[in-house]
Amino acid sequence: MSIIDVGCRLNYLVRSPAVFLLNLSAAQNVHQIVNAESLDVSPTQSVEECAVGPLGNRIVRLNAPPGELAINYHATVELHADSVDSNNLCETSYEQLPADVLAYLNPSRYCESDKLYRFAFEEFGQLLPGYSRVTAICNWTFKQLTYTPGSTGPTTTACDVLLQRTGVCRDYAHVAISLCRAMGIPARYVSGYAVNLQPPDFHGFFEAYLDKRWFLFDATRLAPVGGFVRIGTGRDAADVAFATIRGDAQSTGIDVWAIDTNPDGGASGPDNVRTGVSSA
Amino acid sequence: MSIIDVGCRLNYLVRSPAVFLLNLSAAQNVHQIVNAESLDVSPTQSVEECAVGPLGNRIVRLNAPPGELAINYHATVELHADSVDSNNLCETSYEQLPADVLAYLNPSRYCESDKLYRFAFEEFGQLLPGYSRVTAICNWTFKQLTYTPGSTGPTTTACDVLLQRTGVCRDYAHVAISLCRAMGIPARYVSGYAVNLQPPDFHGFFEAYLDKRWFLFDATRLAPVGGFVRIGTGRDAADVAFATIRGDAQSTGIDVWAIDTNPDGGASGPDNVRTGVSSA
Amino acid sequence: MSIIDVGCRLNYLVRSPAVFLLNLSAAQNVHQIVNAESLDVSPTQSVEECAVGPLGNRIVRLNAPPGELAINYHATVELHADSVDSNNLCETSYEQLPADVLAYLNPSRYCESDKLYRFAFEEFGQLLPGYSRVTAICNWTFKQLTYTPGSTGPTTTACDVLLQRTGVCRDYAHVAISLCRAMGIPARYVSGYAVNLQPPDFHGFFEAYLDKRWFLFDATRLAPVGGFVRIGTGRDAADVAFATIRGDAQSTGIDVWAIDTNPDGGASGPDNVRTGVSSA
Amino acid sequence: MSIIDVGCRLNYLVRSPAVFLLNLSAAQNVHQIVNAESLDVSPTQSVEECAVGPLGNRIVRLNAPPGELAINYHATVELHADSVDSNNLCETSYEQLPADVLAYLNPSRYCESDKLYRFAFEEFGQLLPGYSRVTAICNWTFKQLTYTPGSTGPTTTACDVLLQRTGVCRDYAHVAISLCRAMGIPARYVSGYAVNLQPPDFHGFFEAYLDKRWFLFDATRLAPVGGFVRIGTGRDAADVAFATIRGDAQSTGIDVWAIDTNPDGGASGPDNVRTGVSSA
Repeated sequence: MSIIDVGCRLNYLVRSPAVFLLNLSAAQNVHQIVNAESLDVSPTQSVEECAVGPLGNRIVRLNAPPGELAINYHATVELHADSVDSNNLCETSYEQLPADVLAYLNPSRYCESDKLYRFAFEEFGQLLPGYSRVTAICNWTFKQLTYTPGSTGPTTTACDVLLQRTGVCRDYAHVAISLCRAMGIPARYVSGYAVNLQPPDFHGFFEAYLDKRWFLFDATRLAPVGGFVRIGTGRDAADVAFATIRGDAQSTGIDVWAIDTNPDGGASGPDNVRTGVSSA
Repeated sequence: MSIIDVGCRLNYLVRSPAVFLLNLSAAQNVHQIVNAESLDVSPTQSVEECAVGPLGNRIVRLNAPPGELAINYHATVELHADSVDSNNLCETSYEQLPADVLAYLNPSRYCESDKLYRFAFEEFGQLLPGYSRVTAICNWTFKQLTYTPGSTGPTTTACDVLLQRTGVCRDYAHVAISLCRAMGIPARYVSGYAVNLQPPDFHGFFEAYLDKRWFLFDATRLAPVGGFVRIGTGRDAADVAFATIRGDAQSTGIDVWAIDTNPDGGASGPDNVRTGVSSA
Repeated sequence: MSIIDVGCRLNYLVRSPAVFLLNLSAAQNVHQIVNAESLDVSPTQSVEECAVGPLGNRIVRLNAPPGELAINYHATVELHADSVDSNNLCETSYEQLPADVLAYLNPSRYCESDKLYRFAFEEFGQLLPGYSRVTAICNWTFKQLTYTPGSTGPTTTACDVLLQRTGVCRDYAHVAISLCRAMGIPARYVSGYAVNLQPPDFHGFFEAYLDKRWFLFDATRLAPVGGFVRIGTGRDAADVAFATIRGDAQSTGIDVWAIDTNPDGGASGPDNVRTGVSSA
Repeated sequence: MSIIDVGCRLNYLVRSPAVFLLNLSAAQNVHQIVNAESLDVSPTQSVEECAVGPLGNRIVRLNAPPGELAINYHATVELHADSVDSNNLCETSYEQLPADVLAYLNPSRYCESDKLYRFAFEEFGQLLPGYSRVTAICNWTFKQLTYTPGSTGPTTTACDVLLQRTGVCRDYAHVAISLCRAMGIPARYVSGYAVNLQPPDFHGFFEAYLDKRWFLFDATRLAPVGGFVRIGTGRDAADVAFATIRGDAQSTGIDVWAIDTNPDGGASGPDNVRTGVSSA
């Protein structure tokens, strides 16, 4: 167990009355318990109670008047991730996948797995199935891509990135998700906070479904999986924007943090390769 | 109320042991009651109990040995669609959308609404919001596209179709869904049986979320919305393939039907323009 | 006849020895006579004699050492464009096109006319062939698109722009070229200087082949065609970059001008609609 | 020197008066001398004298009346290709490229080299420049792709093929051309006849510019480069369609051959790896 202190400060200049949908609160589930939490908005307003989506994404709505808007989120989160011997984690055969997992084999907006069957099979078809194959996909993605801030945009897809060979965290996740799905391994996108991420920011990584559970992976190697705090889960980044705005507002500042309060930094050890981490 | 007799016969030549996931059973909900139903497979085998996905899609799995495979589905379905005065159906404002509907504003694999905001706004931004605007999107789609069997393939997207100006039912639905989402109207794909469709086949159409309910639309004008029997619901066609096959099998025949058993053909009247039909 | 004063100042910070290929000198042909011209580079170096490409593009090479680089081009150009009664300008039938014009019916990198046959035919197939049809294509492009600096990048194509409905001058030209080619009208890209362009910059426009000659068109309406001074000609913008750099250099400033020295501004009259201007 | 017997028979059903542009005659140049040649059309008509494009492509026009159309081409061609020690063939540095070669560095419709700079540099940037690097690009292309008739269509591009990993001869050429251009090596598409191609058909391959000359390459390994008879040269397949048709005509048959008349099959030896073949 580790206790992570997470939060963010977002500043906007609102030019016309706008509606904000925020998806930046830490998810609540058996692996992740939110001990204390605050969401403050300035100018002060009562924030509408969270709506919770089908995958546990907590959505907050704001009606923002013109002027400056400041959003402050802060939470203390207990992580109770299971660490499992990854050697025993097999891929779930197609006829055994639960109905609610099947959709994560389907292609999605930024993960065109339907165009990559042969590509994936030729790169990864000879490998042993299981956790190690997903790790191989992460390693391949890490090796093929160069992490370049600003190299991609909101409509960039996994196929775009496979050609241009550069991207940011969401692109790494999209590529790995696409390759997993093309190999018949359900995979989905996770947004979150990440301990030791440099520079600090929201992070995007992914989960693969192995042996009847979801396991966290990150092809960027920018931060340890054990220090990830889940915000949202979805098919790809289209489902988990941390702020969706209707109206005319401009971001004027963003500050994100995630701090492991354990003196020994238990959550941030380099356990993301040999031990499967399931937090879903 | 109307009673529709639906069914299909699918034949395959299976070359190596294969797993079939079928999504061709009529959905069961308050608007659609399945009175009698049979699913027979030859060579005879016990068919695995349906799994039901989160949106009510009924999925059947088969393990098919090499050789000829025949699948026969037959059902009698009572339709209890609500017909509502479409003049009063407004768009739901962004801050009022339920959490489980928000995902249908997001772009998906074949519906790249995120690339079409300006396009949609310029074509439809001046129109009155509500049911009539979705109808205008359908009319525009019908007018812009030419229905050409074989003109598109499994990876064709709404953007592809907007440029090539031709497609089949799934493409018409993808275009209309994309334009709705770009306008802020949640929209999703529906596969189904359709009375009076010529030539008979599975059909693809869509739903838009208006006034706290989902309403059926079809931009192809190939069959009346009142005679649609829902099979599956999803973000786009990626979610509702009627047969997904792992293994080596080739389709050798397909026969689909949907017959309105009402003597007066109540379901197939031309009510798809002026009256909103909600069956979800 | 009019006399146009054109020029540019380009500044770069060169970080490692770099080769520059410049294509910014005014073209020389019977319609466009360069009276006086200078190209100065600082730090001073003798500039390699121009190479002239097959279409008359004048290419200058520089070997730039690390440090600041300033390029100054200045020319006085006599324009002797033919103004022709556009009512009599017919499209050249396919079997009459000269062999060296046929390539301008082919799709090119940023002008995917091969994907737009039906699109073009449905929008423009009912119009009378000839100069007025090319004008209709320009008008349609102008109406469909919004001119937005920064909305597109170096790999943006005509199809991208037709979907996103926004672009800059090169995108307007690419769209109009693509639609012309799809209709069977040879069309090509022209880069140049443009009198009265606001803000001053290099400009991109196009030519269509009608009645055995090339005629200038501009779908942006940003400046009069009569004040265009041709620099380069090509299939699309890929062929006429004003500066191509091998090495590490960063643009630090750009200043472009084109001034009609005629007291009555003869070149800049609004003659681009009713009179065909041939300068090739 | 070798003497190749080439030809083709094309049959069409013409439904409305149509114009055909044929580009199937063997090119004539110092490396390729056409000794005897016939082009017969049935129903008999005088065939319009060939127009010769700027790259030597010989274009024949036909006006075809409704009904059956048969085109018979036959030629005996002397090949005088230079075989050069490929070890000494260096890449031409950017500042030494002639003006008329520069265009073959630019991206084209089916060769999006502008999207592949990093891809090419990472795969081939560490290799020694020269003939061996182009050979490495061919080998890589051969290894990555699977040759699958029917797997691609007329609008498929190099980027599409890099993702789907399958294609036909034109796709192999497009991929290799794109990677060469991205590395700064001018490359262009060549259509032709090919001795020993199985099944017999028109072939598509490419040329790279090395050491002031163009050298033939073929990434498919389907036939020896020494037995290639050039028909057309262009930026990519868009420029060298063997038949372009305006009107309503349907292909009903095609038969292509290329036979090395040398008793010892001199042209078809396996010389395409170690010896550079320049025929342009």
